[in-house]
Amino acid sequence: MHAITIPEPGGPEALVWDEVPDPVPGEGEVLVEVTAGAVNRADILQRQGFYDPPPGASPYPGLECSGRIAEIGPGVSGWSVGDEVCALLSGGGYAEKAVVPAGQLLPVPEGVGLTQAAALPEVACTVWSNVFMIAHLRPGETLLVHGGSSGIGTMAIQLAKAVGARVAVTAGTKEKLDRCAELGADILVNYREQDFVEEVRKATDGAGADVILDNMGAKYLERNVRALAVNGRLAIIGMQGGVKGELNIGALLAKRAAISATSLRARPLEEKAAIVAAVREHVWPLFAGGRLRPVVDRELPMPDAAAAHRVVEESGHIGKVLLIAPQDA
Amino acid sequence: MHAITIPEPGGPEALVWDEVPDPVPGEGEVLVEVTAGAVNRADILQRQGFYDPPPGASPYPGLECSGRIAEIGPGVSGWSVGDEVCALLSGGGYAEKAVVPAGQLLPVPEGVGLTQAAALPEVACTVWSNVFMIAHLRPGETLLVHGGSSGIGTMAIQLAKAVGARVAVTAGTKEKLDRCAELGADILVNYREQDFVEEVRKATDGAGADVILDNMGAKYLERNVRALAVNGRLAIIGMQGGVKGELNIGALLAKRAAISATSLRARPLEEKAAIVAAVREHVWPLFAGGRLRPVVDRELPMPDAAAAHRVVEESGHIGKVLLIAPQDA
Repeated sequence: MHAITIPEPGGPEALVWDEVPDPVPGEGEVLVEVTAGAVNRADILQRQGFYDPPPGASPYPGLECSGRIAEIGPGVSGWSVGDEVCALLSGGGYAEKAVVPAGQLLPVPEGVGLTQAAALPEVACTVWSNVFMIAHLRPGETLLVHGGSSGIGTMAIQLAKAVGARVAVTAGTKEKLDRCAELGADILVNYREQDFVEEVRKATDGAGADVILDNMGAKYLERNVRALAVNGRLAIIGMQGGVKGELNIGALLAKRAAISATSLRARPLEEKAAIVAAVREHVWPLFAGGRLRPVVDRELPMPDAAAAHRVVEESGHIGKVLLIAPQDA
Repeated sequence: MHAITIPEPGGPEALVWDEVPDPVPGEGEVLVEVTAGAVNRADILQRQGFYDPPPGASPYPGLECSGRIAEIGPGVSGWSVGDEVCALLSGGGYAEKAVVPAGQLLPVPEGVGLTQAAALPEVACTVWSNVFMIAHLRPGETLLVHGGSSGIGTMAIQLAKAVGARVAVTAGTKEKLDRCAELGADILVNYREQDFVEEVRKATDGAGADVILDNMGAKYLERNVRALAVNGRLAIIGMQGGVKGELNIGALLAKRAAISATSLRARPLEEKAAIVAAVREHVWPLFAGGRLRPVVDRELPMPDAAAAHRVVEESGHIGKVLLIAPQDA
């Protein structure tokens, strides 16, 4: 098969479409013939040499894909060759074939096409595990999502609205905020022009956000703590604004608030399987009813993954950027 | 009645035993004739002028007491005049009489004397709410308790052992560590001579602590994050080591860990009542079986609260320091 390889870490040009050995499914795994993969920021870090795949993972980038099951490994039940699926991967989604632990497979949701389903596993699992399984967002509460127009952001807005929460978002352009509003966001903050702490306070009668989903880390830590409501929960899933920041424990304590920080990729198989199962139970039915939809910025040919990385690095996109695997005639 | 008043904030001598009006129980409250109160560090901050009582609370210090119900306010059921009780207070425990919201009353546990019961409400509610309701300590996990010989610490050790967890403690003297060991602590760290991060790692095969109960705040923040296990939970309940500290979000994220910070006193009535009810259900039965006991350092006459504050400020005590109210003949 072919896959995107990274012979030397570097810029987008470091991504090389090359012939590589076919992966072989082991115990508890299936082989998926990939229809599409999707770009995540972690892939860019991996390309740059800052985020090695965890032990045992594919060396190629790509944390999610959609496609058809081509082969079933020993000890797998409940899936058949030919099934249309999407999957959470710990690597290897930028390839024509990918090996997937069965616990990380999801059926293509009703109402979603096979290609577009590649946009879903990472964002659905990240948002569900953080906003609901860890931070327990409840109906009537306010969720603040940083980067509301990102893949994560567009899923977080839709899911939070579906459970009856209010949603505030930050983004850097009017166009992005307009898309967030179309998806249901109630409170729109242009972080280039407005102070999100102040805007969230104003919109909540001074109360603040009950849950914050944050991808900025250190840069927003102090402001996020200020923006939290009493009993608030800050869920950090990225550190685009740095790794170390000053924490005002006094402010946290006065609010009886909590901070969690997680990543999906490093979780052991059983934790990933538990999250995937919860997503299938709670999130997947919302696609059938039309309350959730994939948000895809564009589809590019997988061999030109470099172009897709440039799009994501320039942050002009809204939702996910997909990589379409070459389909044999 | 008499109560300890604070005419001017200051040192222990600022505590003045004075005649004051009797408090009157309102809707949903009872009046308790106080047998004993107990000293908490928050009382010292209040004496120094750094921690005003929350709105509506008694102006006198004292966050817990034991005694007998002397009067029942309107709308209270399930309690009778003469009942022996102990209570969580938002103030006013250093007094001959205290008004208590009914949701913050607890019966004196089986096997505990009326005086000693004054040592229990704050520590039981703080430990249960933080270590179990928030951090969900589970059997087989490791709890690290800073200040293992404090009132909080001695309760945390006993409760964690009762549920089948391993317990590591820090303290500053061999005598204190010996008492922690008698109460069941498995891993003893003298923080003056040893690095608790290193000691906890060694004792857990490199895994770290699943839950940390911390009273130091900023001073220990970086080390606490290093001492946490994967999926670890740091519960901060005090800031004796400062309010603002550097948080390594990268380290937190790599461990998928969480930090909470809470205080009991500022919680609204319904949250206090929920915690008190949980303590009555889960903690109180352990006294009857002898698996928990109050740890009392000494009993001093309430009018001499200044002496009790000096004891606590010198940190030579183990467990709680009680204040015995003068008993009318």
